[in-house]
Amino acid sequence: MTGYAAPIRRLIQELSRFPGIGEKTATRLATFILYTSERDAARLAESIMEVKRKIRFCSICFNLTEGDVCEICGDSARDRDVICVVEDPDSLVAIEESGSFRGMYHVLHGVLSPADGIGPESLRLRELVERIAANNVREVILATNPSVQGESTALLVTKLLQGKDVTITRIAFGIPIGGDLKYVDKMTMTKAIEFRRGM
Amino acid sequence: MTGYAAPIRRLIQELSRFPGIGEKTATRLATFILYTSERDAARLAESIMEVKRKIRFCSICFNLTEGDVCEICGDSARDRDVICVVEDPDSLVAIEESGSFRGMYHVLHGVLSPADGIGPESLRLRELVERIAANNVREVILATNPSVQGESTALLVTKLLQGKDVTITRIAFGIPIGGDLKYVDKMTMTKAIEFRRGM
Repeated sequence: MTGYAAPIRRLIQELSRFPGIGEKTATRLATFILYTSERDAARLAESIMEVKRKIRFCSICFNLTEGDVCEICGDSARDRDVICVVEDPDSLVAIEESGSFRGMYHVLHGVLSPADGIGPESLRLRELVERIAANNVREVILATNPSVQGESTALLVTKLLQGKDVTITRIAFGIPIGGDLKYVDKMTMTKAIEFRRGM
Repeated sequence: MTGYAAPIRRLIQELSRFPGIGEKTATRLATFILYTSERDAARLAESIMEVKRKIRFCSICFNLTEGDVCEICGDSARDRDVICVVEDPDSLVAIEESGSFRGMYHVLHGVLSPADGIGPESLRLRELVERIAANNVREVILATNPSVQGESTALLVTKLLQGKDVTITRIAFGIPIGGDLKYVDKMTMTKAIEFRRGM
C-alpha cells in the first residue's frame, strides 16, 4: 500500500478486517469514503457507533434489540406457547420474512463446534431450558441449520428437554421449492427420500 | 430487512451505499460490526472520520496527502523535470509500486466523459498547464487509462501543451507480461501490432 498517506492506509487496514473483504476491495471502499462528503462519512461512522451503543440482547429470547425486550417478545399477538430455536438473528429474520411462524424465538448465538472450541456453555442453552421450565411451552421447534453442527446442537437440546412436558420438532429438510431432482446433491436427495410423508 | 432493530437497519443502509456492496453483503458487514468489540468498532468509525479530517489534495500535484504537499512532491530526490499525468490516486499508487518511475505526478481526478457531464473544468487541467509554464519541465508522460475517455483526455492535454517547449509521451499499450496472444482481445492485439517497435 505504498503511496497512500497513513490515515488512508489505516482505513484500508480497518476495512480489510471485514469478513470477505480483501485489500483490493478495502481500497475501493476507502476511495469511496475519500470522495464522499464529510456529512455522508460522518453518517456512516455514527451509524457504526450507534449500533454498538444501542443494540443489546433481548432479555427473553436473546435476539438483537434496542430495548430490554425485542419487538417480537413484546408483541402480545404472538403465540407464547411455541418457541422456535435458531442459531443466530439472521435465521430469525429469515423465518420472520417467510411470514409462516407466529410464535416466539430463542437465539442460541452459535452452534456446537468442538473444532472451534464452541461448547454448550458458549450457547444460550441454559436460558432456553429455564424459559421452558418457567412458561407454559407446548412445542419447541428446532430450527438450527441442517449442518453437522446444527444437527448435533438439535440433538443436545432434545436431550436437555427429555422428560419435560413439551413436544420437540425439527424443521423439514428436502428438495427446495423450484429445485430440480436432477441437480440436487446426494445428501439432500437422501433426506428427501428418508423423511417422506404420507399423502 | 424486517426483524432488525432500527439502528441495525440504518447501518445496513449506510453500508449498502458502498459501490459493489449489495444488501446481502451489507448485512454480513453489519453482523460483523454487531459481534465485534466496542473498541474495534470505535477504531473503524474513528479511522473513517480521521481520513475526512486529515486528507487533503497536495497543493502541487493533487495527490491525496495529509500535509499541504505530498510525500512525493516533498522528496528532493525525485526528478522534477518529468511529470506523469494520471487519472486518480490509485493509478499513481500503481505506478509507484512498479518502482519504475522517479519523476513527479499530476492527478487529474477524473477523465473527460461528456456522457457523465465531466468536462475539462472538472479536471485539474488548468493547474497542470500552470505547473508546466512555471517549472523547467522536460517531459510530460500521459498515463491516463487506455479507454475512450482516457485517450480523449490525453489528446486534450496534448492540445493544451501545443507550442510549449516540452516532450509529450504516452505510456505503451500492448500484450501484458505473462499474457498469451491466443487469449488477448482484438483491440489489444491491434494496438500491439500498430505500435510495434524496432529491435
